[in-house]
Amino acid sequence: MEEGGIQGHVQQTIVSMLKIKNESIRVFLAEALCTFSMMVFGLGSVAQVVTGNGTFGEYLSINIGFALGVAMGVHIGGNVSGAHMNAAVSFTMCVFGRLRWKMLPLYVFAQFLGSFFAAGTVFLIYYEAIHHYCGGNFTVSGPKATAGIFATYPAPYLSIYTGFFDQVLGTAMLLLCLMALADQRNKPVVPRGEPVGVGLLVLLIGISLGSNSGYAINPTRDLGPRIFTLMAGWGLEVFKAGNGWWWVPVVAPLFGGVIGALIYTTFVELHHPDRGSTETLPINEPECVRLDKYKKGSTDICV
Amino acid sequence: MEEGGIQGHVQQTIVSMLKIKNESIRVFLAEALCTFSMMVFGLGSVAQVVTGNGTFGEYLSINIGFALGVAMGVHIGGNVSGAHMNAAVSFTMCVFGRLRWKMLPLYVFAQFLGSFFAAGTVFLIYYEAIHHYCGGNFTVSGPKATAGIFATYPAPYLSIYTGFFDQVLGTAMLLLCLMALADQRNKPVVPRGEPVGVGLLVLLIGISLGSNSGYAINPTRDLGPRIFTLMAGWGLEVFKAGNGWWWVPVVAPLFGGVIGALIYTTFVELHHPDRGSTETLPINEPECVRLDKYKKGSTDICV
Amino acid sequence: MEEGGIQGHVQQTIVSMLKIKNESIRVFLAEALCTFSMMVFGLGSVAQVVTGNGTFGEYLSINIGFALGVAMGVHIGGNVSGAHMNAAVSFTMCVFGRLRWKMLPLYVFAQFLGSFFAAGTVFLIYYEAIHHYCGGNFTVSGPKATAGIFATYPAPYLSIYTGFFDQVLGTAMLLLCLMALADQRNKPVVPRGEPVGVGLLVLLIGISLGSNSGYAINPTRDLGPRIFTLMAGWGLEVFKAGNGWWWVPVVAPLFGGVIGALIYTTFVELHHPDRGSTETLPINEPECVRLDKYKKGSTDICV
Amino acid sequence: MEEGGIQGHVQQTIVSMLKIKNESIRVFLAEALCTFSMMVFGLGSVAQVVTGNGTFGEYLSINIGFALGVAMGVHIGGNVSGAHMNAAVSFTMCVFGRLRWKMLPLYVFAQFLGSFFAAGTVFLIYYEAIHHYCGGNFTVSGPKATAGIFATYPAPYLSIYTGFFDQVLGTAMLLLCLMALADQRNKPVVPRGEPVGVGLLVLLIGISLGSNSGYAINPTRDLGPRIFTLMAGWGLEVFKAGNGWWWVPVVAPLFGGVIGALIYTTFVELHHPDRGSTETLPINEPECVRLDKYKKGSTDICV
Repeated sequence: MEEGGIQGHVQQTIVSMLKIKNESIRVFLAEALCTFSMMVFGLGSVAQVVTGNGTFGEYLSINIGFALGVAMGVHIGGNVSGAHMNAAVSFTMCVFGRLRWKMLPLYVFAQFLGSFFAAGTVFLIYYEAIHHYCGGNFTVSGPKATAGIFATYPAPYLSIYTGFFDQVLGTAMLLLCLMALADQRNKPVVPRGEPVGVGLLVLLIGISLGSNSGYAINPTRDLGPRIFTLMAGWGLEVFKAGNGWWWVPVVAPLFGGVIGALIYTTFVELHHPDRGSTETLPINEPECVRLDKYKKGSTDICV
Repeated sequence: MEEGGIQGHVQQTIVSMLKIKNESIRVFLAEALCTFSMMVFGLGSVAQVVTGNGTFGEYLSINIGFALGVAMGVHIGGNVSGAHMNAAVSFTMCVFGRLRWKMLPLYVFAQFLGSFFAAGTVFLIYYEAIHHYCGGNFTVSGPKATAGIFATYPAPYLSIYTGFFDQVLGTAMLLLCLMALADQRNKPVVPRGEPVGVGLLVLLIGISLGSNSGYAINPTRDLGPRIFTLMAGWGLEVFKAGNGWWWVPVVAPLFGGVIGALIYTTFVELHHPDRGSTETLPINEPECVRLDKYKKGSTDICV
Repeated sequence: MEEGGIQGHVQQTIVSMLKIKNESIRVFLAEALCTFSMMVFGLGSVAQVVTGNGTFGEYLSINIGFALGVAMGVHIGGNVSGAHMNAAVSFTMCVFGRLRWKMLPLYVFAQFLGSFFAAGTVFLIYYEAIHHYCGGNFTVSGPKATAGIFATYPAPYLSIYTGFFDQVLGTAMLLLCLMALADQRNKPVVPRGEPVGVGLLVLLIGISLGSNSGYAINPTRDLGPRIFTLMAGWGLEVFKAGNGWWWVPVVAPLFGGVIGALIYTTFVELHHPDRGSTETLPINEPECVRLDKYKKGSTDICV
Repeated sequence: MEEGGIQGHVQQTIVSMLKIKNESIRVFLAEALCTFSMMVFGLGSVAQVVTGNGTFGEYLSINIGFALGVAMGVHIGGNVSGAHMNAAVSFTMCVFGRLRWKMLPLYVFAQFLGSFFAAGTVFLIYYEAIHHYCGGNFTVSGPKATAGIFATYPAPYLSIYTGFFDQVLGTAMLLLCLMALADQRNKPVVPRGEPVGVGLLVLLIGISLGSNSGYAINPTRDLGPRIFTLMAGWGLEVFKAGNGWWWVPVVAPLFGGVIGALIYTTFVELHHPDRGSTETLPINEPECVRLDKYKKGSTDICV
């Protein structure tokens, strides 16, 4: 942009005036925007499948919607905030010393805002479709339930114990694989291939660990839209349904994320030969060497 | 080609005679051909699903058809015209100083011609299939409607206001993500990975923002084939249907594109650290450095 | 292999004895094997969908089967024979001076053999499944027809004229895009990305131009298995069906291929700025520079 | 991790204490973890489709589940153990001198353990779903059979002879293509693209060679979960079903793997021009040159 030609000087002046140099604000804006985009795509795909009654996609469409939504989110925020878009990811990064603890609230708040406003946007765009589908009666359960467009609810047969384990396992597999995708001494994704790699991972989790409770595996992805539906007409039932299910996708992913990252570390990453023997390193230098430079202060997690 | 061997000299002479050096004509030809190809693939996939009655693909096939059609279009025109294939993209590039305004009519005309002739080609190839499907009665609405193979129409429940917002949002998400995919200081696609990256984006929009009105998000993609159907037997109804829906996918994407690009710029791109600190740049030099050389005059948008 | 360690010397001796240095034989073996593999995967996916009665995949599975089959074929034969796997591709390469004419019979024969034996292999593997599906009555048309597993047949509504045009268009789009994927002065696939690029192209053609007559777009892919079915129990009907359809996918693709390659050349490739101005070339050197070295004699087409 | 900042020294001390330098243990841990992950994803996707009664995915979802599961497995174990995740792959690598024979039991045991515990994990997570689906009656055959979630069973029409050939062919195609994907003198996958390349291959085999008997093509993938189901309530029927089918996916893949690798070698790899003429090598140095260094002792198979 700043190479804009004729009106170059004026433009450059405006650009410098508007440019935000505070890193926290930059991170906040990027994290909010990538979470918003991911959620517009993800929730939009659910809305389309639910209100389309099978004509506009199927369960697999939802898996692809969230998967590519995450991929686009990584493109949008990747090099600025790391594009976590998930409080469990941010939390795990803090536990593993890859994100400063004092940045955590900023990440979580940005993610929450992004998810909340994405729910609002999808609600506006699909308001008439939802209305048409359920006859204006916004319900959380039953044959024409629509609350599941925005937040996750457990299958009728699911106990809270298995549901908790389901969310722990899903998030553990997410972080276990994220660690592998980013481990430059193992077989990581191609440089700049992170968006597609992470997207395929999310697709896979939806395909294999999604039917019990809708694979939230993400506190902010679930809570923001749930609160939105509380306000938008579905009422308190969104918090009561499923024996008070709402807290499970908020709490369980925090445990799951740390467990998954710990498993990868203790089974694989910890035992790589010392970096001194760098002649075994792949020839393509890792793109994420920034991590080494910025040390613990970095907000960049290479994924 | 010019390394052709035995008949090399003759061939080279012919090649130099036929070679067009005027950049406008080169751009026009490439933009028309890539739009034509994209639309043959895209409209072909709709024709197949509609006339196949569920036997030859489903809604997801259409999403993939347009997505990969766009990807092939980028391969075909990418380095010559930038392969916009969408007047909203060209318009936004002009607003953001990445395409000269005087090139805009040429782009729009090439895109319109490409779309129009693609509609004609798909009509010829699938004429018998369409005839077989609807019994020779070409209608715009009703159970055996076929006008939707070529242009987009809104769902029965959709108001013109929500429809307009739907087209603004879809195109905004398109340009927001296109800007991110091409932002060399963020997490762009791998070099030469633009075709697949843009294709996945179009797949995603179809999966998440397609059921309200068929995700035209492209004035030329919609208007060219609509005019073709007017002439080919569907009559004036193609302009009257949906309370005169036709102008929405022509006008709304222009707003949407600029809004989306503006959002990415103000949330992310504007605040990248100064280029002076280039040691944080990825090692793989961006393929699109041409942009810097050609400055505003360039027709190459890196995507 | 030749770095085999302990039994190294013995092994190396055997290897040199078995090594074939004649390029024609090397090309023949590679082209036959990659065509065989592509066809086992492709025909296998059709067999699975047809005999599975909807339980083991759908139309999209067949599209993916042939697409990834082609991708694997390119991996298997890519750097040896160019992995055409399609007589229309080989023929077009000859017309455009990228393959010596005297190599054409060798390519066609290898492709024919590969396709024929792949049909036989799929027949053996799925013999019991086919028998179970149709009750042992091998028919070319009717509700339990199974000849379509091996060769293509036109839809009942299709005239021979539209069918011919259908095959011309499909193959033209194939070659048009193949030329673009390999054009190093445009926006080609990433180095070594040819298998996936070509695979996505075949997927796209199946999704958009497949319902009229099953997108053979390949003389050898269609004729070899058709002759196999003649011998394996379906009888002469395989040549009589569809008003003697069998010659259309043999002849039309030859025209289509040349037309498609010609369109790309005249619309785009011919008008690239002279190679002298190589500073506009992408930084990643094209992997296919071999083409320039081997000149017309090369059997390597970069795709 | 070892660059951890403030608590750096303490952390580094702990890290060196925990670091395992014995390569066999490192390989065992990595191979077990990547097999476990692959199988959790794969079996999870089957469980979801079976218990979801068509609401949570279809046959294609299972194909994608195993495909991306394998891809993630390669990311997790790729550079440590080679991520075979399949005793037939390990066996073939031994036969071809790419893995020491004395490492084979370790690989097989790691793969068996990983598969067994993955079956247990999926059983726990989906216990309530399975119970709900079949009413608590765990059966191997019949309309509500659930044993097929964990191990493979032949179609009712399949003879043991065709079934054996089916498993030989599937594994042969697997190894044939794996050899091609890794052959640096042919058209291999892009560097670091192995996970996606191998994943697409597994997807393809599931789409084209899956309906006869569920494409185990892997002794450990099948036997571990089968033994688990024996213990978990399905009883001895899991070994009796299909005329004692269980040994076929254990034995046939060993033959198939060697045959497939042999075919690729004799048709293609053996006849590459001598390495002395390295000027025809692709410019991107192969990432897997480690193979040359470690010679026969290497456990790294580049795939």
